[in-house]
Amino acid sequence: AMDGAPPPTSPTGLSAYVAVSQLLGLTLLATTGAWLGRYRGGVAWHSPLQFNAHPLCMVLGMVFLQGDALLVYRVFRHEAKRSTKAMHALLHGLALVIALVGIIAVFESHRTKGIPDMYSLHSWCGMAAFVLYLLQWLLGCGFFLFPGASFSVRGQYKPQHIFFGIALFILSITSCLLGITEMLLFKISDSYSHFVPEGILANTLGVLLVAFGLVVCYVLTREEWKRPPLAEEMALSMDFKTLTEGESPGG
Amino acid sequence: AMDGAPPPTSPTGLSAYVAVSQLLGLTLLATTGAWLGRYRGGVAWHSPLQFNAHPLCMVLGMVFLQGDALLVYRVFRHEAKRSTKAMHALLHGLALVIALVGIIAVFESHRTKGIPDMYSLHSWCGMAAFVLYLLQWLLGCGFFLFPGASFSVRGQYKPQHIFFGIALFILSITSCLLGITEMLLFKISDSYSHFVPEGILANTLGVLLVAFGLVVCYVLTREEWKRPPLAEEMALSMDFKTLTEGESPGG
Repeated sequence: AMDGAPPPTSPTGLSAYVAVSQLLGLTLLATTGAWLGRYRGGVAWHSPLQFNAHPLCMVLGMVFLQGDALLVYRVFRHEAKRSTKAMHALLHGLALVIALVGIIAVFESHRTKGIPDMYSLHSWCGMAAFVLYLLQWLLGCGFFLFPGASFSVRGQYKPQHIFFGIALFILSITSCLLGITEMLLFKISDSYSHFVPEGILANTLGVLLVAFGLVVCYVLTREEWKRPPLAEEMALSMDFKTLTEGESPGG
Repeated sequence: AMDGAPPPTSPTGLSAYVAVSQLLGLTLLATTGAWLGRYRGGVAWHSPLQFNAHPLCMVLGMVFLQGDALLVYRVFRHEAKRSTKAMHALLHGLALVIALVGIIAVFESHRTKGIPDMYSLHSWCGMAAFVLYLLQWLLGCGFFLFPGASFSVRGQYKPQHIFFGIALFILSITSCLLGITEMLLFKISDSYSHFVPEGILANTLGVLLVAFGLVVCYVLTREEWKRPPLAEEMALSMDFKTLTEGESPGG
């Protein structure tokens, strides 16, 4: 806009879908808070309520922030690739730190109460999602953020990065649904089948998680909404490609 | 091959991934059978074992057959579009019938035992998956199989059909994992945390379901493995397009 050109616009529909995704994201955070606050005594660290930090951190980190990190290339379509990439990595990094706090919460809570770790399908899926998410983040930083990798290696890895990024986001949401089901059957197994409000609220949280995942994945996979390469990026990338012939762009 | 030309080949890797998917699919059916047969007394219809028909039918219909129906356009890359399409619709139809039997099994079993229906997150997700899957099948038949819809309408609906087809396949797998967790917490809640063999086996079934979903979705989303339009199809489609200018190809 500094050169007087009209500011570039987003495709019709994209902004509306992104707005709906953020509304769903905030609603699912509020619903998690309402469940824990209203029915589970709230959240606290050095207390019997330490467990409750687990669902809150996992929904915030592994779902909301992970989802928003996936969306940055669609939302900031016309920003410089470099700053968009940094924000993508930073949001995923923040999501990982918050998820780690949530994992520490459940392990410490289990130790205090003498409950074994890692026996349930929820724990298997959730731990797989977290470990592979950390690995994906490290690989992403190594290939795309640091200047060591050549353009051809980046180009080969990129489709894998995108596929496994979406797959891990979906596995994270699935793990949350498994955690909700576990928690309800641990806490209200006697009344769950009588449609008590806590059961309805937690089920609704599950539905919101599915809806958030659906909207984010829809935005990510629409061909017309993919980030267009900026003119100067294409020229620069072509120059580099020609100059280095597959060599490192930093070399 | 009748005209003496060499038979067309599939891209490297595709056949291997499809073989792995089928191996995983058969393994997860065998694992479901082993769980129900070894630990849950087997499967029978007019008996207290009627419930066990539910997991068996859902894994067979909503996961294995639904997944294979999604793969037909990749596996039969060089067959006539018309017969591939018929097989796609037929496999989904078979999946729906088997899933319906599985749903009847759980409703009848609940009625016999006096257990309420549709209160759990598993039932909400599973029922949503089934109803939307049936709707998707009806829409698919209406748009693509019967000759009423114009090429432009088909073209507009196709990306939606593909996105929601994959989304429903993933939601079906998620519903299975929720069902596994529910069943384990209903049946072996006292011993699940002590890593008993039944818990490990059922968790493994969950992991196999995730792996099957991952491999099928990987095959479906790889750009190089998409079905190439056959030469005569393109010509025909162009002719139709030119002749009818967006009118119904059957009109």
